[in-house]
Amino acid sequence: MEKYSFLNDYSEGAHPAILKALSESNFQQMEGYGNDVIAEETKTILHQKMNQNSSEIFFVSGGTQANLIIISSALRPHESVISVDTGHITLREAGAIEATGHKINVVESTNGKITKELILPVLKEHDFGPHVVKPKMIYISNSTEVGTIYTKKELEELYAFAKENKMYLFLDGARLGAALTASDNDLTLEDVAKNTDVFTIGGTKNGALLGEVIVVNNEKLQEDFPFHIKQKGAMLSKGRLLSTQFRELFKDDLYFTLAKHANKMAEKLTKAILDQGYKMLADSTTNQIFPILPKELIQKLEKDFIFYRWKEIDENNIALRIVTSWATKEEKVEEFIEKLKP
Amino acid sequence: MEKYSFLNDYSEGAHPAILKALSESNFQQMEGYGNDVIAEETKTILHQKMNQNSSEIFFVSGGTQANLIIISSALRPHESVISVDTGHITLREAGAIEATGHKINVVESTNGKITKELILPVLKEHDFGPHVVKPKMIYISNSTEVGTIYTKKELEELYAFAKENKMYLFLDGARLGAALTASDNDLTLEDVAKNTDVFTIGGTKNGALLGEVIVVNNEKLQEDFPFHIKQKGAMLSKGRLLSTQFRELFKDDLYFTLAKHANKMAEKLTKAILDQGYKMLADSTTNQIFPILPKELIQKLEKDFIFYRWKEIDENNIALRIVTSWATKEEKVEEFIEKLKP
Amino acid sequence: MEKYSFLNDYSEGAHPAILKALSESNFQQMEGYGNDVIAEETKTILHQKMNQNSSEIFFVSGGTQANLIIISSALRPHESVISVDTGHITLREAGAIEATGHKINVVESTNGKITKELILPVLKEHDFGPHVVKPKMIYISNSTEVGTIYTKKELEELYAFAKENKMYLFLDGARLGAALTASDNDLTLEDVAKNTDVFTIGGTKNGALLGEVIVVNNEKLQEDFPFHIKQKGAMLSKGRLLSTQFRELFKDDLYFTLAKHANKMAEKLTKAILDQGYKMLADSTTNQIFPILPKELIQKLEKDFIFYRWKEIDENNIALRIVTSWATKEEKVEEFIEKLKP
Amino acid sequence: MEKYSFLNDYSEGAHPAILKALSESNFQQMEGYGNDVIAEETKTILHQKMNQNSSEIFFVSGGTQANLIIISSALRPHESVISVDTGHITLREAGAIEATGHKINVVESTNGKITKELILPVLKEHDFGPHVVKPKMIYISNSTEVGTIYTKKELEELYAFAKENKMYLFLDGARLGAALTASDNDLTLEDVAKNTDVFTIGGTKNGALLGEVIVVNNEKLQEDFPFHIKQKGAMLSKGRLLSTQFRELFKDDLYFTLAKHANKMAEKLTKAILDQGYKMLADSTTNQIFPILPKELIQKLEKDFIFYRWKEIDENNIALRIVTSWATKEEKVEEFIEKLKP
Repeated sequence: MEKYSFLNDYSEGAHPAILKALSESNFQQMEGYGNDVIAEETKTILHQKMNQNSSEIFFVSGGTQANLIIISSALRPHESVISVDTGHITLREAGAIEATGHKINVVESTNGKITKELILPVLKEHDFGPHVVKPKMIYISNSTEVGTIYTKKELEELYAFAKENKMYLFLDGARLGAALTASDNDLTLEDVAKNTDVFTIGGTKNGALLGEVIVVNNEKLQEDFPFHIKQKGAMLSKGRLLSTQFRELFKDDLYFTLAKHANKMAEKLTKAILDQGYKMLADSTTNQIFPILPKELIQKLEKDFIFYRWKEIDENNIALRIVTSWATKEEKVEEFIEKLKP
Repeated sequence: MEKYSFLNDYSEGAHPAILKALSESNFQQMEGYGNDVIAEETKTILHQKMNQNSSEIFFVSGGTQANLIIISSALRPHESVISVDTGHITLREAGAIEATGHKINVVESTNGKITKELILPVLKEHDFGPHVVKPKMIYISNSTEVGTIYTKKELEELYAFAKENKMYLFLDGARLGAALTASDNDLTLEDVAKNTDVFTIGGTKNGALLGEVIVVNNEKLQEDFPFHIKQKGAMLSKGRLLSTQFRELFKDDLYFTLAKHANKMAEKLTKAILDQGYKMLADSTTNQIFPILPKELIQKLEKDFIFYRWKEIDENNIALRIVTSWATKEEKVEEFIEKLKP
Repeated sequence: MEKYSFLNDYSEGAHPAILKALSESNFQQMEGYGNDVIAEETKTILHQKMNQNSSEIFFVSGGTQANLIIISSALRPHESVISVDTGHITLREAGAIEATGHKINVVESTNGKITKELILPVLKEHDFGPHVVKPKMIYISNSTEVGTIYTKKELEELYAFAKENKMYLFLDGARLGAALTASDNDLTLEDVAKNTDVFTIGGTKNGALLGEVIVVNNEKLQEDFPFHIKQKGAMLSKGRLLSTQFRELFKDDLYFTLAKHANKMAEKLTKAILDQGYKMLADSTTNQIFPILPKELIQKLEKDFIFYRWKEIDENNIALRIVTSWATKEEKVEEFIEKLKP
Repeated sequence: MEKYSFLNDYSEGAHPAILKALSESNFQQMEGYGNDVIAEETKTILHQKMNQNSSEIFFVSGGTQANLIIISSALRPHESVISVDTGHITLREAGAIEATGHKINVVESTNGKITKELILPVLKEHDFGPHVVKPKMIYISNSTEVGTIYTKKELEELYAFAKENKMYLFLDGARLGAALTASDNDLTLEDVAKNTDVFTIGGTKNGALLGEVIVVNNEKLQEDFPFHIKQKGAMLSKGRLLSTQFRELFKDDLYFTLAKHANKMAEKLTKAILDQGYKMLADSTTNQIFPILPKELIQKLEKDFIFYRWKEIDENNIALRIVTSWATKEEKVEEFIEKLKP
């Protein structure tokens, strides 16, 4: 690529520390299928960071895979999952959830977040079983697909609501690093573990070659979980490839350092864009931002940079999606800012 | 692990050349989801080795994943796949195929291979549709789960039979390297491509960190294939992780060199075992061997080595499964041979 | 029930002619699984009424069953079906379609009908495969869930649009009788057969004990269709139970006579309701009507009649759903009208 | 049909008392979807006959439908069901169980019955989860597909074994009438209810137009059961069609009277066949018998009768399947016997 890409947060390989760690233990013989010694170490580290030991921890390759395993292992055939319209499972996973037999109940949300108020009409509409599915799980992302994050209060209230209604709360953390290091965040990993039934910690978009951690908090959902990982083709023979990366990311908070960098780069871009008098489509404090720019300017920027044209706003303006990452070079951000100027 | 493991062919990490290649391109920005430039290069290399360009080539993480994607994308809901009783899909994949809705018609085979003669009774038994499933695909492995391999003549005849009966032939090549470099092999990669509808080339068990190539030869099965990869959670954001490894394995025949080493180590063990007067459960010329040893000797060997106790033969003897790999150290093989002696 | 029910069109048993026909052939031995002689006769009658012989015809028990068999047999795993929000498959079938692995793309429609204009945004939104499902089928109902019907021009245009976009058009005719005998209808059974890939003719709601005819017009969808009927548990051993009923309904147009009666009763109610100055929620000319009545009046009516409270309109008014059928007694309609008066 | 058929037990319609009952209540308005008053009555009758009230009772159309609903509602995705090789779900349901995502573990059985001894090797083979499915349900039929029946002791022991191993026992009673009225039977309906987690009572093959009762004894399996009936397309709008038939069959033991007749006819045939010096393939005391007859005699019989050629025994002899039913005419049995004589 000759142009610099802000297209997504997975354009580069892995953080060098990760490659180094993989090399160092490369010739050590280890057990397969996730039973390696590094997996044990990594789980211990994560349990410490969550300040509890009761969650079960698994490592899989990717986000869609994690989502479909979690949802299909938790739900009985007639149960459904509620998601916002921008939820990754709704429109970006090629029907992965439905392919396991489950309906997604979609609710519209302007800021990518779900609330009790948005869920209540769904429950009411589904109050005449057995003619309809039974909503049993709430799916949320943090950060969301539009870059917003949940506050501690919001998460606690949502989890309380889920429990009252005998539903599970599942938090997709493909970009959990970005969320937990956002300037306006007040959640910790411990809070997330205490206020969800199951959640994931994304590695691919924050420094790893690939990998998502699945953390199953709810004891009921833990039963036989590895069978589902295997059945869906997600159990790597060389599980060490995943555990080694997450050990590296979490043993010294590299995970959070990397996410902070991504957020900082996005913040810098945001400030410059607002300074130039442009608006943003959504109030993101994480590594995905959605500036609304005039078409002419966009064409100019596209000579040197790659990004998504997210949404046509009006005849003259388009909202872009610009994504920064752990690997984003500050000099490229500055170049971009320079090009913004008239 | 203090003991040396002959448990499987995925106890170590990756061949160093692979780690090096990953490091070298690490900071280069690339497109995601398998559309990276290295993927294009790798496909060109593989097309050359197959001496044709019409096959479509994809990279996924693991064998069970490849199997379930291939089978579920090829079959309509009422169609089934035929496999031998030792087939990986039959007993080692936690119901992955059935989870996509398809029955496996199991036939018993003593040597892990399937023949026209074994399939005919299945077709006869399923001649009263619509009350039964419709067998539509034949699943084979090369090398098989018991280490045996197909000859060129056997593969050609099986493919001709499949076509006559309007069935697909799918060859699972999780250990294709071992098969194609066996001392008694007469098949080439080109032969495999010409005599199957779809096949895989396993990386995990032959030097890669993870990864299987899916080669779709039959045009009908090519249609929309990427949708199925995505839907089953197998499309890596950083597809480069897979393509880079296979480029390394195939650009200079490293793949075959590694497999040869594994076979050679197994051959050395086989010779020594036979020299001592012991028998083998199956006639393997690849990297999995099944010596039948007396229990006392096994206990002695287990002090220094790890391997599977495969099958109880009689009161005094057990068949072991011993697996060698690209990483097997010759000195350890010699140590093992030494311990065999009375 | 002491009150008279306008709750639905399946509160009574079957038309007496049907029970008589079942009795008459009761002791005749016949082949099972839909291969009975009466099935052959009935297919001939239906082919004549459709003025063509190329459609394949099957009989199953119910509407949800027909819908899930048709959709799951036609679609590959990554393909989806488009439906309006009030579509029966969307909200009234307990996730039956998703349980076979397929997503429903829901579009909002005020009158229960789908148009090219409503579909285009769905196609645009799904233009970035393989990350999304591939919309492959359009599902419509005639009459719709809100009692409206398609004109000949609308159906022809929709079918042309479907073909242009390589999609299938499936018409759910659970209430096809009501549609084809509505006062403003200009469609014939022949038109329906010529302008859909597959459609159903509902028996349960128009005089039968149970039963839906599935008419598969598209040759591609005909392949192996009976396997799907069997696999989904819909192939009755005594298929004669279904064929006998449909022979009776179609040999002398009883089907249309019964539907006309239902429509006439609804029309009579509609006229009286409008005469009293009340409005209707939807412009239905079939056997489901949705009058908006004041709560006080509703309470009065509920002393003698049963019907659904469909939707709260405002503080004082509720839209009801009133359904008439082949069995609705005109005297009960008149009693209802009398009670409407102040 | 000009020839008399012993092909199966569903060649005729329904017992006249059933048609009469359907006619009598035909114009009475009733609630739909199985909530009719007759369903309540019928459940009360069945609870009395089972001498307990805790089982939940449902009515569906057919056997394959009942089987797939029961199995898919009870099992989680990674769980499997064990069946003998002749089990109806194994080879006669077009992959209906696998289509819901579940593997069937097949065990060979010479007499159609399953025992603890046959199951133990399956459990052993599946002792290395999560790489294999988890056997969770035992499926049996009574009478079996080869006409044999379970004794009280056998059923009690099997149920105890299932519970010890945390598995469910499901008894398919498509021909339960024949089993419970066999000359050598010592089981009652109460015994069946007390020694299974779930079972069915077949109507189609014993006098009804269609219909199977599903009796769910295990409280855990009762949860949300109607959702599964709906989702699989098995919830009839006019549920009265099913309940009315079973009320008629059970209010005065008609069900058992009819089954006894079928068995008596089979017994008469069996005696005559043995008297002529022929052998039977299986020791059936119910309404399916499997005489081994010389080909010449078979050709002679086929001039007047229809039956299955079940299995080639040797060059000269074939085992037939002859099925009698509630409707079998004794004079036809006598004609058949006459033709047997040299």
